[in-house]
Amino acid sequence: MIFDNLTNKTLLLASQSPRRKQLLEEAGFTFIIVNTKFIEETIPKGIINADAAVFLAELKANAYISDLKANEILITADTIVCSEDTILGKPNNYDDAFKMLKSLSGKTHSVITGVNIRSVNQSISFSDKTFVKFKKMTNQEIEYYIINYKPYDKAGAYGIQEWIGLNFIEKIEGSYFNVMGLPVHLIYEHLKHF
Amino acid sequence: MIFDNLTNKTLLLASQSPRRKQLLEEAGFTFIIVNTKFIEETIPKGIINADAAVFLAELKANAYISDLKANEILITADTIVCSEDTILGKPNNYDDAFKMLKSLSGKTHSVITGVNIRSVNQSISFSDKTFVKFKKMTNQEIEYYIINYKPYDKAGAYGIQEWIGLNFIEKIEGSYFNVMGLPVHLIYEHLKHF
Repeated sequence: MIFDNLTNKTLLLASQSPRRKQLLEEAGFTFIIVNTKFIEETIPKGIINADAAVFLAELKANAYISDLKANEILITADTIVCSEDTILGKPNNYDDAFKMLKSLSGKTHSVITGVNIRSVNQSISFSDKTFVKFKKMTNQEIEYYIINYKPYDKAGAYGIQEWIGLNFIEKIEGSYFNVMGLPVHLIYEHLKHF
Repeated sequence: MIFDNLTNKTLLLASQSPRRKQLLEEAGFTFIIVNTKFIEETIPKGIINADAAVFLAELKANAYISDLKANEILITADTIVCSEDTILGKPNNYDDAFKMLKSLSGKTHSVITGVNIRSVNQSISFSDKTFVKFKKMTNQEIEYYIINYKPYDKAGAYGIQEWIGLNFIEKIEGSYFNVMGLPVHLIYEHLKHF
């Protein structure tokens, strides 16, 4: 389904995440993947969780804005995992991943994805939050996952759509696709009226 | 990860659903798809929702039981969609699908998957329930989905992993994979101790 307001517009997704690409495709949108020059994902102290995700999505957009053409609409996103007021980023190594998954085991954490949709003369930012409850995992199960799935490109050291998500996530409250990296239901609404 | 208690056992999945096959594969299990002679999915009057899903899963198992060998473990499942005390089955035609999706639009319904795991001398049944909230959908959006995705093999006339799920499901409460057709996190636990 193509929205009338998007005729003659080119949608750009500035993300290297294969999961975001997959979600936006399955949601029925036609778009081009672009690179932003944005690298550093540092969150200023004092910024709260939902704001942090939006802040990072906007930073990514800002890094591309000078290249944006009049007929283009840019989508950027950032997903953060929050466990007991700690923001978990991507793990640096095995020990880091193990520590993160151990801290998520048997508990509920939240996943927030911030999104920025932007054209030359319009910008909308929003975020969505999903609660995720993990069953208790043994050290052996955590080890098995890290060795076999190498979750080093994933905030919080896990992918909900992988072995660990299928077998150990007991329940979620909110959007599943938001945990995967893109709250598509909100993007659909915002693009419909952009 | 292979459980010690399953060494020398053959896991059978009696389901024609490509989604169940995919979920059990991604959960890391090795298994064989088998056919049951079970056809009629009639739910006796007065049986309540969660019981109905388990009842149907057990009926499917019963239809295979005479073929089950000593080293085999059979998994059967049935997923039902409940909207305001009505159980929605698979739609018979376009009008039926349209009516179902119209009744789900803007509301929360529940999805229950009943599972039976059985060997020659052991049987365990359980179910899982997930609440699913749809945003309001226009007639045009419902029509677009039915024409393009033909959800005639799906209870409630939708697949959560398809276009309609990505763009219109606002939130769920419970297991996402249970809505897709298999509460894998529960199967994992039960197989571990079977």
